[in-house]
Amino acid sequence: MRPQAFIFDVFGTVVDWRSGVARDVSRALPQVEPFAFAAAWRARYQPAMERVRAGGRPYVALDELHAEMLDETLAAFGARMTPPARAALATAWERLPAWPDAPDGLARLRTMAMIAPCSNGSIALMTRLARYAGLPWDCVLGADVARAYKPQPEVYLAAAAALRLAPGAVMMVAAHNDDLRAARAAGLMAGFIPRPQEHGPGQTADLSPDGPWDLVADDIADLAARVSLGVGR
Amino acid sequence: MRPQAFIFDVFGTVVDWRSGVARDVSRALPQVEPFAFAAAWRARYQPAMERVRAGGRPYVALDELHAEMLDETLAAFGARMTPPARAALATAWERLPAWPDAPDGLARLRTMAMIAPCSNGSIALMTRLARYAGLPWDCVLGADVARAYKPQPEVYLAAAAALRLAPGAVMMVAAHNDDLRAARAAGLMAGFIPRPQEHGPGQTADLSPDGPWDLVADDIADLAARVSLGVGR
Repeated sequence: MRPQAFIFDVFGTVVDWRSGVARDVSRALPQVEPFAFAAAWRARYQPAMERVRAGGRPYVALDELHAEMLDETLAAFGARMTPPARAALATAWERLPAWPDAPDGLARLRTMAMIAPCSNGSIALMTRLARYAGLPWDCVLGADVARAYKPQPEVYLAAAAALRLAPGAVMMVAAHNDDLRAARAAGLMAGFIPRPQEHGPGQTADLSPDGPWDLVADDIADLAARVSLGVGR
Repeated sequence: MRPQAFIFDVFGTVVDWRSGVARDVSRALPQVEPFAFAAAWRARYQPAMERVRAGGRPYVALDELHAEMLDETLAAFGARMTPPARAALATAWERLPAWPDAPDGLARLRTMAMIAPCSNGSIALMTRLARYAGLPWDCVLGADVARAYKPQPEVYLAAAAALRLAPGAVMMVAAHNDDLRAARAAGLMAGFIPRPQEHGPGQTADLSPDGPWDLVADDIADLAARVSLGVGR
């Protein structure tokens, strides 16, 4: 059955956060190794959300967490910035390049079904990123709509509910097997695409699908082609 | 100051609900006068939302209210439909034609600022309508995001907050002076465009701006041109 909507993980799946963040870091902090800084900033992502998921902190948009994570990363690198420069760098996540196949692949997929991000990024962040990267979403779903963070089931369920679709009529697409496991457990379909360069050279995680996903494709353009042809794995 | 985002009323301001609903009514109920039926259906709109606004009923998406209002309108016209036909007609609000200036005007405006609907329609309804009518929104805001109905101030404030903008950096655009009064009271800028055919021939309301709105334009294309030139009223 063809899904009526495809919802996407974004950081890593649709956009290349590593090179985008490193580019802004290299301009703002020429003294640090930009890819190491980007990786260290991103490494604080799951722990920061985990406090919210565990109930230790009320829901706060990822924009706030990104700013706090930046402060911690600056301290870890012994780097200093003026408050305006720090605030500007904190928004680097709004200016990430799309993986080359993403804009056209999404545009093609959109001719067949609704498409939306289901990211832990806020509506504000996803909206600005879509404008920057040329992502033709029909609407923006995700953490802000559920006021919770993936992989909590309510994020996937709130995305389907916002479209007034049964979870089983929606496919979650991600380059991360954990995201798909959680979406599947919530009743959604799951589509995997590998992004072997997400973490740069030497990546070991998520190089291939490790679950019985409904669809596996090489990238978003290939995913759109397979959906068009009715081809699954 | 140029707004960083423009948020739009949709029914009447961006799309022509009257002729769109009448078209579906004429196909589904050939025995009734379609424009009279459309007007009667729409006349139940404010009373239906008022129960939610007044606290007499928890927030429920406009899709639900539209279906209930349809049942009441069918009863008032002494018309009967099968449940599947009634359910199909209830979604007529997803298939409304854009006013002719809207798609290109929005596309031009979008090159200058973020654009989103701030309608009482749900995310599901606005998403499907945007696909049908060719409305190039950056994201979908409005009642579902606030879980409240305009003109309650939280709807306008939630839209600005979702974009992480101060209310004063956002312009609400509507063909309805009441909508703009409420947006202004919440701290937003206000832009008026007349839609003298919204209610068909003989319309008397909202033919002209009746408040000190920040911008008055002939239509959305003219609004985009005025924003581009920095021209206000």
